Amino acid sequence: MSLMTSASAIVAADKLGMDVAFENARKSYGEGGVPIGAALVYHGPGGEEPRVVGQGHNQRIQKSSPILHGEMAALENAGRLKSDVYRNSTMYTTLSPCSMCTGAILLYKIPRVVIGENVNFSKEEDLLRSRGVEVVVLEDERCTELMGRYIREKPEDWYEDIGETAV
Amino acid sequence: MSLMTSASAIVAADKLGMDVAFENARKSYGEGGVPIGAALVYHGPGGEEPRVVGQGHNQRIQKSSPILHGEMAALENAGRLKSDVYRNSTMYTTLSPCSMCTGAILLYKIPRVVIGENVNFSKEEDLLRSRGVEVVVLEDERCTELMGRYIREKPEDWYEDIGETAV
Ligand SMILES: [Ca+2]
Ligand SMILES: [Ca+2]
Ligand SMILES: [Zn+2]
Ligand SMILES: [Zn+2]
Repeated sequence: MSLMTSASAIVAADKLGMDVAFENARKSYGEGGVPIGAALVYHGPGGEEPRVVGQGHNQRIQKSSPILHGEMAALENAGRLKSDVYRNSTMYTTLSPCSMCTGAILLYKIPRVVIGENVNFSKEEDLLRSRGVEVVVLEDERCTELMGRYIREKPEDWYEDIGETAV
Repeated sequence: MSLMTSASAIVAADKLGMDVAFENARKSYGEGGVPIGAALVYHGPGGEEPRVVGQGHNQRIQKSSPILHGEMAALENAGRLKSDVYRNSTMYTTLSPCSMCTGAILLYKIPRVVIGENVNFSKEEDLLRSRGVEVVVLEDERCTELMGRYIREKPEDWYEDIGETAV
């Protein structure tokens, strides 16, 4: 495989993962929920065809859940997995992960996190990197725009989601 | 309130919280599940009568859930709470928290964690302390014994629960 092909393959996988994450975010927004989506994509130890093993979105509003952030919903949707699967997967998330979702990524030793945007929220990227996780920020304007709109429209729900209070 | 009364009140609250956490762990064990239980206990800003606002146990086996650890199940059971409630509560857990549950405690700025035991597992107590969380380890032998028994009986389920593989 040439270097160019390899780089293109990585870009294609990241586009797949972020597209799935963003579609979940948009679905949540359509339901009046916090518009953060995520996808867990298995790529295997040797760069196999990427496969979405879990996807989901924030469920604070829809299920009154304080733990189903986008990344957590994607992990729950994937169900019980062998440790090897996590260790050869990438977590895609439309927004930079909070402490809880960061901890879940560390628990399962997911080696790579691809973030849609970190303009509207950024908290634990340094912790992820300090534990050896590769962190990529795409600066995806679809994600920034949708999340920014929600924060303006429903600040109370958003701040509750990160353990804060809207001022 | 005298110092002695105050100290006794703290001990009584911790006994309540850990008893609830342990009952949840024992219930999970009876179901064939990972025997880790937790309780979120609200004590208010001024030392009110403690009140259990959420409780639960690990649901890996029962619900095929990779995210419902004991502490997460207690948070989910409590439902949506105002940020003030978390900030005036203690999380009780029968076993020292993993990275995911540690992250959830940090997200919601729960100021105090009381741990039944850290003999069978200990991972993120330093991270909790470094972020200003008070960590108390009770060395509760009920917790150590029950968890140790489960690890001997079902090592594959236990190691899966912490993102590892039984050897
Ligand atoms: Ca499933
Ligand atoms: Ca509830
Ligand atoms: Zn999160
Ligand atoms: Zn945990």
